[in-house]
Amino acid sequence: MINKKTLSELISEQEALLSLPNTPVDDSNGLFVRYRNPVLTRAHVPLVWRYDFDLRTNPYLMERIGVNSVMNSAAIKYDGKYLLVARVEGYDRKSFFAIAESPNGVDNFRFRKYPINIQQYDDSETNVYDIRLTRHEDGYIYGIFCVECKDPDAAPGDLSSAIAGAGIVRTKDLIEWERLPNLKSRSQQRNVVLHPEFVAGKYALYTRPQDSFINAGNGGGIGWTLIGDMSNAKVLDEKIIDRRYYHTIKEVKNGEGPHPIKTSKGWLHLAHGVRSCAAGLRYVLYLYMTSLDDPTELIASPAGYFMAPYGSERIGDVSNVLFSNGWITDQDGKVFIYYASSDTRMHVALSTVDRLTDYCLNTPPDGLRSSTSVQNITKLINKNYEYLKAQN
Amino acid sequence: MINKKTLSELISEQEALLSLPNTPVDDSNGLFVRYRNPVLTRAHVPLVWRYDFDLRTNPYLMERIGVNSVMNSAAIKYDGKYLLVARVEGYDRKSFFAIAESPNGVDNFRFRKYPINIQQYDDSETNVYDIRLTRHEDGYIYGIFCVECKDPDAAPGDLSSAIAGAGIVRTKDLIEWERLPNLKSRSQQRNVVLHPEFVAGKYALYTRPQDSFINAGNGGGIGWTLIGDMSNAKVLDEKIIDRRYYHTIKEVKNGEGPHPIKTSKGWLHLAHGVRSCAAGLRYVLYLYMTSLDDPTELIASPAGYFMAPYGSERIGDVSNVLFSNGWITDQDGKVFIYYASSDTRMHVALSTVDRLTDYCLNTPPDGLRSSTSVQNITKLINKNYEYLKAQN
Repeated sequence: MINKKTLSELISEQEALLSLPNTPVDDSNGLFVRYRNPVLTRAHVPLVWRYDFDLRTNPYLMERIGVNSVMNSAAIKYDGKYLLVARVEGYDRKSFFAIAESPNGVDNFRFRKYPINIQQYDDSETNVYDIRLTRHEDGYIYGIFCVECKDPDAAPGDLSSAIAGAGIVRTKDLIEWERLPNLKSRSQQRNVVLHPEFVAGKYALYTRPQDSFINAGNGGGIGWTLIGDMSNAKVLDEKIIDRRYYHTIKEVKNGEGPHPIKTSKGWLHLAHGVRSCAAGLRYVLYLYMTSLDDPTELIASPAGYFMAPYGSERIGDVSNVLFSNGWITDQDGKVFIYYASSDTRMHVALSTVDRLTDYCLNTPPDGLRSSTSVQNITKLINKNYEYLKAQN
Repeated sequence: MINKKTLSELISEQEALLSLPNTPVDDSNGLFVRYRNPVLTRAHVPLVWRYDFDLRTNPYLMERIGVNSVMNSAAIKYDGKYLLVARVEGYDRKSFFAIAESPNGVDNFRFRKYPINIQQYDDSETNVYDIRLTRHEDGYIYGIFCVECKDPDAAPGDLSSAIAGAGIVRTKDLIEWERLPNLKSRSQQRNVVLHPEFVAGKYALYTRPQDSFINAGNGGGIGWTLIGDMSNAKVLDEKIIDRRYYHTIKEVKNGEGPHPIKTSKGWLHLAHGVRSCAAGLRYVLYLYMTSLDDPTELIASPAGYFMAPYGSERIGDVSNVLFSNGWITDQDGKVFIYYASSDTRMHVALSTVDRLTDYCLNTPPDGLRSSTSVQNITKLINKNYEYLKAQN
């Protein structure tokens, strides 16, 4: 009555899901195309992680350890495969990391046998999430993730206040992970990302200084800092390279996504912007570019968002959220943008380096008021009417 | 791979959307009937506003200026056509106004060639939205809209605090718009609406005094004030005509919708009420009536909401919101109620003046507690049992 399916039926049903081909949707604004099916969901998590298969010890064939969601995933191409390092969240609200691999980047993502076992660095660490991977020119692949612990100064009875910092691991094979000391920083940090190249002989980090946990506080946006030694990483000096502004999609918070893509025209960045509304916070994705000569110099900042929650993406554990911490560029310039919707599941959208840079360099920047937006649209309308007249 | 469609395919696809007939849904509570399709969405926005049609300057056929949503629209019948003055919001979060016209009020809404270009009144003005139109007996059509600017007294790092006021324009032809000075008011204002008739020789405004931006503050609800000169409009004295109450649908905020409809039994008002819940704010629509002799005297206040978000209306950029700032009455008494759902798209529902006044005058008012609600329902049940017994 309660289990209608046998274990072998569950297994073959999951196999059907895992091998389901994915296809692009018909609808595209030319910037990117979404794929129809999510690429990773909790239903993709191996049954051996969740069920005790032995009916002597699990006579009711019940799920023993439930997985709530699979979201905010780092991405990397490795040995010709497309890998996601997913944030897997249990029913217990704790997150951990697990690798899923696909032969083509859009479907057939399968988790490896085990989740990643990240060494605990400090006993106060409660939750880890939102890892970013960077294949650095020093030869290592680094992972930087958020580490959260209870605020030791929280008022009695306040069980919610937390302190956020950045944990660091490195690996050469995505099997053995070496834990390095956490990033030292005067302020709390989330969305810390390692730049893939040395800059002035140093490691460079994108940061997001925050004075309190939810508000980005006085810190004005996405920061940048240079680090001498990743085994003893310390934020000495931060420069804000992409600011927040009133009445934009990044009014309340913003943060770097995956590390930027190097293009002939500059570093191409994917980030998230957050605004407040009557239904809570709204997270959208946006792009910007920085100079190759000076990666702290903003050279393109198209107005508004690049992608926002749409259709079934709008709803989830934390609705109205798109978040990305992973993208993969193929040799031919294809860009696989991996993004989570509403803290619940992972999707892919496809674009190209050429389209994304063209978008960044040819979309009007934010004029920061309604009248400027009308001017920009009017200019485009006039250009089109003239073009159409010339055609006739 | 990424655009499957050519420009001419995009154009013919949009033409199919614009010419799609709309039909009433089967389901009605007798108060109104909803129509199946939204009447305006972002997909209705002209392609020449969004795409650069010239493939020499837009080689990838990408959207250059994205439109995020089309919502909170004023409505007016003009030259036999049904006009919506929509709030159009770009990907950049800035709103502006644009007119869309329909021959029948329920479908075939088409935007005019250009958005409305409202003159900037003051450099601090960042965003404009939620315009109400009133064809006043002085011969002008007035538009009053919300003007928002950054709070100059916001704490450092607070990029969200805003100040809301009322901007005023007037026109005779809906083509040339004359900007008048903003409404002067001691408190912030939103949802300011011009009454269509002179009262004691003066202009009359519905107001919504608020002490802070989000909270309606100490101001108790929808206000009323008399203005000598619309070219120098100043709130001297405000009277609250429709109050907020604890544990009602207008507990947190309320605000006038479009200007009231004059009926033989009184002024018929459409307003929105807001309450708070764990998922944020919930916006519903309600009706009330005021006296023809004294428009500040409340004569009917049916309990609860008239319309609430339902089905797909529930979800959008700001979920759980219905909002209306436009309705049109036909000569035969039909009322076209234009409402936005979840800050994302525009809908129409149809009713009549007779139904709406009958509803206002015969729905029990709010008893403000559960036991009164049970008494009201019990009274109705008893009436029905007696009626049914008498039938047998």
